[in-house]
Amino acid sequence: MKLKFTKMHGAGNDFVVIDAINQKIDFTPAQWKHLGDRRFGVGADQMLVVEKSTRPDCDFRYRIFNSDGGEVEQCGNGSRAFVKFVVEKGLTDRKSISVETMAGVIAPRLEDDGSITVDMGAPILEPALVPFDAEGLTGVKEGRDTLWPLTLELGGDKETVLVSVVSMGNPHAVQIVADVDTAPVELTGPLIENHLRFPRRVNAGFMQLVNRQHVRLRVFERGVGETLACGTGTCAAVVAGIRRGLLDSPVRVDARGGQLSIAWEGEGQPVWLTGPAVTVYEGEIEI
Amino acid sequence: MKLKFTKMHGAGNDFVVIDAINQKIDFTPAQWKHLGDRRFGVGADQMLVVEKSTRPDCDFRYRIFNSDGGEVEQCGNGSRAFVKFVVEKGLTDRKSISVETMAGVIAPRLEDDGSITVDMGAPILEPALVPFDAEGLTGVKEGRDTLWPLTLELGGDKETVLVSVVSMGNPHAVQIVADVDTAPVELTGPLIENHLRFPRRVNAGFMQLVNRQHVRLRVFERGVGETLACGTGTCAAVVAGIRRGLLDSPVRVDARGGQLSIAWEGEGQPVWLTGPAVTVYEGEIEI
Repeated sequence: MKLKFTKMHGAGNDFVVIDAINQKIDFTPAQWKHLGDRRFGVGADQMLVVEKSTRPDCDFRYRIFNSDGGEVEQCGNGSRAFVKFVVEKGLTDRKSISVETMAGVIAPRLEDDGSITVDMGAPILEPALVPFDAEGLTGVKEGRDTLWPLTLELGGDKETVLVSVVSMGNPHAVQIVADVDTAPVELTGPLIENHLRFPRRVNAGFMQLVNRQHVRLRVFERGVGETLACGTGTCAAVVAGIRRGLLDSPVRVDARGGQLSIAWEGEGQPVWLTGPAVTVYEGEIEI
Repeated sequence: MKLKFTKMHGAGNDFVVIDAINQKIDFTPAQWKHLGDRRFGVGADQMLVVEKSTRPDCDFRYRIFNSDGGEVEQCGNGSRAFVKFVVEKGLTDRKSISVETMAGVIAPRLEDDGSITVDMGAPILEPALVPFDAEGLTGVKEGRDTLWPLTLELGGDKETVLVSVVSMGNPHAVQIVADVDTAPVELTGPLIENHLRFPRRVNAGFMQLVNRQHVRLRVFERGVGETLACGTGTCAAVVAGIRRGLLDSPVRVDARGGQLSIAWEGEGQPVWLTGPAVTVYEGEIEI
């Protein structure tokens, strides 16, 4: 079949977005993998498929496939691209959209300036649930947060870094650095990612404070390495900064791939992520 | 402007191909770079621009831009994509096409099976012209070739590898290995690439002999690292094998990105490379 698609990105995280309302889509994992290949196919971090919802309370259903062909649950940057797509294609005239996903119902909304706000859920702050193994450790209290010491072995030498541990559905270890440009992300990122205190490994965030409402951030993602913008990592970093008493909501976050904004009203409340989504080009592929 | 383009690949080397006969193209280096970006633009190894030739003896002119925005001279895999493009788009009904490039006139031809044959020029075999500094070295004669010893420092230990040195417009050092799958390409590739005997550095080829007309090949490209298929590296490897008396023309070459075929009649003669070009998808981007 000839498949029409739209290539989009959200802060550098890129997507092949497919209208499965006006096209019949039934691809094998191998076909998804082919679509996700940057040389032999189209290429993207993920493929987003827009469908009609079967639920009466939802406007759409959307599914996410990784470039390895597997279906996954959620993606903050992807849901922004989804909203931009359904608005630009005239599939809805609403600004607040109710969407059925594998991870439950989400309700992203289009802002007047064209950016999109997504409810990223409430952070999980209990170390054992991140999960983080704090047994025998003494953390350092700062504001409402506890900083945990991680011992890193650097070529024979040992170094201790203090991190906040936060889960946004996936685990994060956030540290404050003087300058993200010179922070040793490639060197210490893998050591934090695989630290034995994190039984499911962890994403390592490196945050530079610009002022109380503006930070710069780099994230070394679990299983991937440094990325241009990690939605959940952005949330986790700002949550840590607010709990430490160093930041006030809302906070502007400069990631490598673009600018995001995070709002959070405190424990038990959801984190709201606002950011751009950009349509790059339209394409048609025989598949 | 809205730019129509075609995404193609030749053995995994990928291209954005643009018809500049029916579209007016006048992009800045920044716009070429944007087009070549895999997340924020379309993404490809190179952009190929098909124009009318100003010479009476040429059917077309074609220009090549790297994804860093700069214009470059030649690309074997790209000229196959070029031929497939002008035939598929009905821009010509010839099978042998005369093309003006920055590197001179080339004459690729479409084969009956849809593959494309390109004249890659005659190899340069004189070490000083590769360029390779053979001063004070004693090479090993084998057939009509000389194998040169390169001393590599591997974590304190020294190892000597024997290479053929060949230029196809760019320098290559080709060695024979028992098995390309287990050859230490990532480990020794950079050591060969930057060996002081090659004043302009060198591409490192690792060739496994299957029989006298069939090899498997991996190439560590200068300034890039291992690639899926290197056109000039494929030519250089087969030239080396034929001169060493180990191969007979034509030779099938299995590269990581696909299958190529090389024909060469000996010194002073051009190397002919035959291989596929595949149209992946059609696109339209606002630029």
